[in-house]
Amino acid sequence: MWMLLAKNLLRTKFYEDCSRILLQIPKGRPSYQKCFLSISKPWLHSARIVQAVQTFNIDTAIQKVETLEEKQFICVHWEDGSESLYPSVWLRDNCQCPDCFLHSAKARKLLLENLDINVEVKDVILTEQKKKVNIVWPDDHTSEFEAEWLKKRCFSDQARAKAQEELFLSERQYWGSDLELPTMDFEEVLHSDESAYKWLVTLKKVGIVLLTGAAIKQGEILKLGQRIGFLRLTFYGPTWQVQDKLDANNVAYTNEKLSFHTDYPVLQFPPGIQFLHCIKQTSTGGESEVVDGFHVANRFKEQNPYAFKILTSTFVDFTDIGVDYCDFAMQAKQRIIDVDENGQVVRINFNNA
Amino acid sequence: MWMLLAKNLLRTKFYEDCSRILLQIPKGRPSYQKCFLSISKPWLHSARIVQAVQTFNIDTAIQKVETLEEKQFICVHWEDGSESLYPSVWLRDNCQCPDCFLHSAKARKLLLENLDINVEVKDVILTEQKKKVNIVWPDDHTSEFEAEWLKKRCFSDQARAKAQEELFLSERQYWGSDLELPTMDFEEVLHSDESAYKWLVTLKKVGIVLLTGAAIKQGEILKLGQRIGFLRLTFYGPTWQVQDKLDANNVAYTNEKLSFHTDYPVLQFPPGIQFLHCIKQTSTGGESEVVDGFHVANRFKEQNPYAFKILTSTFVDFTDIGVDYCDFAMQAKQRIIDVDENGQVVRINFNNA
Repeated sequence: MWMLLAKNLLRTKFYEDCSRILLQIPKGRPSYQKCFLSISKPWLHSARIVQAVQTFNIDTAIQKVETLEEKQFICVHWEDGSESLYPSVWLRDNCQCPDCFLHSAKARKLLLENLDINVEVKDVILTEQKKKVNIVWPDDHTSEFEAEWLKKRCFSDQARAKAQEELFLSERQYWGSDLELPTMDFEEVLHSDESAYKWLVTLKKVGIVLLTGAAIKQGEILKLGQRIGFLRLTFYGPTWQVQDKLDANNVAYTNEKLSFHTDYPVLQFPPGIQFLHCIKQTSTGGESEVVDGFHVANRFKEQNPYAFKILTSTFVDFTDIGVDYCDFAMQAKQRIIDVDENGQVVRINFNNA
Repeated sequence: MWMLLAKNLLRTKFYEDCSRILLQIPKGRPSYQKCFLSISKPWLHSARIVQAVQTFNIDTAIQKVETLEEKQFICVHWEDGSESLYPSVWLRDNCQCPDCFLHSAKARKLLLENLDINVEVKDVILTEQKKKVNIVWPDDHTSEFEAEWLKKRCFSDQARAKAQEELFLSERQYWGSDLELPTMDFEEVLHSDESAYKWLVTLKKVGIVLLTGAAIKQGEILKLGQRIGFLRLTFYGPTWQVQDKLDANNVAYTNEKLSFHTDYPVLQFPPGIQFLHCIKQTSTGGESEVVDGFHVANRFKEQNPYAFKILTSTFVDFTDIGVDYCDFAMQAKQRIIDVDENGQVVRINFNNA
């Protein structure tokens, strides 16, 4: 089983020069500055970007509104001929008035204990300009909903799928040794919002992006982190230098060959995104290899379902003990391959050290 | 379903004074300093402690060793009459010689690609003092294993269960309104290793500990974090002040009532441990309520399996957008109750805001 897995590791080899920043590349021999980011979904980190993708080009004029199913639902008939159905309890729960919603925090104030889950609409009124729906509740509390707000939250499968896609960017590119490594300019990513957005979207899709043109010195990674959020501290420090060290507390800090691995398998929450900056290349060797673990796992599942089942169900002990930024003694149990409720591979925990 | 869930929230009420540090208590009205820790298992954070619990009082003298199953296994017969069986491939993979193992990092150097998974023992020798087992492999590589090292790693169900228990401390105390809140002295925890250990073990078991006697000023939380690791940075900053704020970016920063909730449900990896320090108590009100979500979920599962099934399988959208330590726009899908592969509740994601 292990040999089959190893054979499946479709290697993409390339040599680094000293002005490149590598993302999610396993550690090789060169002297790196390395760190990882705290933001689990940094591509959603900028409010500006999210606002942009949430803009809809739709006709939000309402033709009429009516109650259905004994006032348990509101049906909005749009001018374009489509309809949207909203549960009354959902509308009450999402009342946007200042008593029920804190707009500065974009958060609900209405307490769950004050929500009647059997609430029915007392009256529903379409405003004159047909751009707002006013609802009166049995206790005479009133809610006002903008047509655009309602349209964005349409419950149809199609509308929900569209909204989810815009929020979560589900597109993935799985790759083998034929990968053409996406490459962008470091300074452009730092200074152009368009480039930064393209970088993040590509990173989400492919899992790796090579940035070229960073200065040959420490600190560049910090700049990149601050560009989109902040670096996450670990017990190896805010950033760490991957180089040959005396009494190394990690195999990465030697000049030995490293096999493919994921970092920090001992963490309950390992890094989502890692930055590697090659500052000084060794004169010979120092080759880095990267592999798309999801691609390997998916092929492995097809080729050897039995072994795949073992790796997705057997817990393996991981240990990391030592002294660095602080002293640490971490212990965890992880499956080599984690799958979600649909059987999709969502995480790889693989480290030979 | 929601009402039933709300009714199940068995409230434990208590009033705070200004010199207490609260752990994992939802936010109320008082002015708090708050933060959370980065270490997912801080009770395992001190190497000293782990070393202590890993000490075995066992007879590790070996009577004899032999190979079994065509040299695919080694059987160690102990002086106390018990036996331990070790797969040959496992022994080869865990060779402790300097070529195969980096002792300064306590990590494997042997590469997976260099491991023959069908390896057989060529020869096995018990040393004169019967305290070490020497193995010669077909390529004449030799491995030496200490008796104590082998005994600790015995594969029997009983030995493994014991080792796992010592590493992971599985004991849990689920509680309702009858909880007698575990209380300890802040300064003692800071200065006595025994108290710190007791604090962490209690925290692991009960989920909440009240520390009294901290100074009435900011910075005490930082000390507590440094005592066992380091604080984890979030987009609300290294620590944050829970008080009534103008244009609050969170409902917690108002004087409104908060319902029961877990913090940061929008994070892929929410806080494991939270520190709350009550620095200034409001003159009236400011009551904090805590609930054992695991206890509630377990009772809920018994009383309404259908609703439990919905809450453990339906994904809910969480959003957090604003500006604080940095600007942020987070979006996530979580189940209200997460269960593991055995159906055990492992996480609650519940936030009304």
